Amino acid sequence: MQSASMFYESIEVALQTGPDIRDITPDLDQLIRKSQIEMGSLCATMVGSTGSITTIEYEPGVVEDLKKAINRLAPPGLEYEHEKAWHDGNGHSHVQAALLGPSIALPIRNRQLRLGTWQQVVAINHDNGPRTRTVEVSIIGTKQD
Amino acid sequence: MQSASMFYESIEVALQTGPDIRDITPDLDQLIRKSQIEMGSLCATMVGSTGSITTIEYEPGVVEDLKKAINRLAPPGLEYEHEKAWHDGNGHSHVQAALLGPSIALPIRNRQLRLGTWQQVVAINHDNGPRTRTVEVSIIGTKQD
Amino acid sequence: MQSASMFYESIEVALQTGPDIRDITPDLDQLIRKSQIEMGSLCATMVGSTGSITTIEYEPGVVEDLKKAINRLAPPGLEYEHEKAWHDGNGHSHVQAALLGPSIALPIRNRQLRLGTWQQVVAINHDNGPRTRTVEVSIIGTKQD
Repeated sequence: MQSASMFYESIEVALQTGPDIRDITPDLDQLIRKSQIEMGSLCATMVGSTGSITTIEYEPGVVEDLKKAINRLAPPGLEYEHEKAWHDGNGHSHVQAALLGPSIALPIRNRQLRLGTWQQVVAINHDNGPRTRTVEVSIIGTKQD
Repeated sequence: MQSASMFYESIEVALQTGPDIRDITPDLDQLIRKSQIEMGSLCATMVGSTGSITTIEYEPGVVEDLKKAINRLAPPGLEYEHEKAWHDGNGHSHVQAALLGPSIALPIRNRQLRLGTWQQVVAINHDNGPRTRTVEVSIIGTKQD
Repeated sequence: MQSASMFYESIEVALQTGPDIRDITPDLDQLIRKSQIEMGSLCATMVGSTGSITTIEYEPGVVEDLKKAINRLAPPGLEYEHEKAWHDGNGHSHVQAALLGPSIALPIRNRQLRLGTWQQVVAINHDNGPRTRTVEVSIIGTKQD
C-alpha cells in the first residue's frame, strides 16, 4: 500500500427552480484527471441546505420521475412551519434536501469514477428559484508509480 | 499535494423520543480544531440502527417540518412485521433510519466545515424513547505547512 | 497521527428481484482484516443505478418493513416516464435507488467496523429482476504500530 495524497476543489452548477437535476459526472472526472490520482475515493458535498447529491441514470424520462417522487416526499403545496417564520416559500425545499442528503462517496479506479454504465452523479436544486450551487470535492488516493 | 493524516474520535448526543433532531455542527468543528487538520474530509456515522445524520437549516420551524416528513415516510401507526417478533414498538424507527442513512461526508476547508450559511449537520434519533447516541467521526486531511 | 494507507477491492452480491436486501457486513469486515488497517474509514458504493446501500437491523421482520416503505416511496404500479422510452419496467427501481443513495461511509476501529449491536450494512437491489451487484470498497486508515 502507498501513502495517500489529497486534492481539493469545488465546482459550480447552475440549476433551475427545484427540483432541478444536473449531471455533474464529467466535472468530477475532470477533477480526478487534474488530481493525477489513480486509485482512491471522491467525496462530493452540496454546499447549502436546499440542495442534494445522488446518482441516477441521467435520462430525461427517469429524471422527470425522480422530480415527481421528490415532490411526493415533501409536496410544495403543504403547510410548512418554516413559512410562518420566514415566508420565503421554500419549506418543502429544505425538507426534500434533508431527506436526500448532501453528500456522496464514490470510488476512483484507473483515473476515473467507477460507476455503472447507466449511472451518473447528479446535483439537485430543491429551492423555489434558480440557484448556482457549489459542490465541494475532496479526492483522496494514490498516484501511479 | 501533501500526504494525508488521520484523526478519530466520537461524540455523544443526548436525544429525546424520535424523531428528535439535534445540531452537532459545533461538536464537529471542535474536533476539527483538535485534529489540527487544515484541509480534508470528515466522515460522521451514527452508531445504532435507529438513528441517522443529515444536514438542514437548524431553525425550529423547518425542524418540525422535517419531523413530520420523516413520520410520513414510515408512520408510527402502521403495522410493522418487526413488532410481531420483538414487540418493542419501534418498527417505524428502524425503517425511518434506514431510509435517511447513517453517514455523511463533509469538506474541511481552512480548519472548519465548509457548509452553507444556513446549513447545519444534525443527528436524528428515530427510536421510541430518549437515547444518547454515539457518532463516530473520522477526519482525514493535510495540516498547515 | 500517522500517515494514511489505502486499500481497494470490490465484492459481488447476488440479489433477487427488488426490493431485495442482503447483509454485507461480514464481507466488509473480511476486507478490513485483509487490508490490515487498524483505524480508519470505509466507503462502500453500489455500482449501478438500480441499487443502494444503507444500514438496518438485519432481522426478517424489519427487512420486510423496509421493502414495503421503499415501495411506498416509488410504487411499482405508478406510470413512469422512463417506461415511455425504455419499456423495461424498472422506472420505480431507478427512482427508489436515487432516493436511498448509492454510498455509505463507515468507521473502522480496532480492525473492524464500528457499528451498533443491531446495525448491519445492507446492499439493496431495486431492479425488476435478479441482479449480481458489485460494491466497490475503499478503505483508508492507519495500521498498528
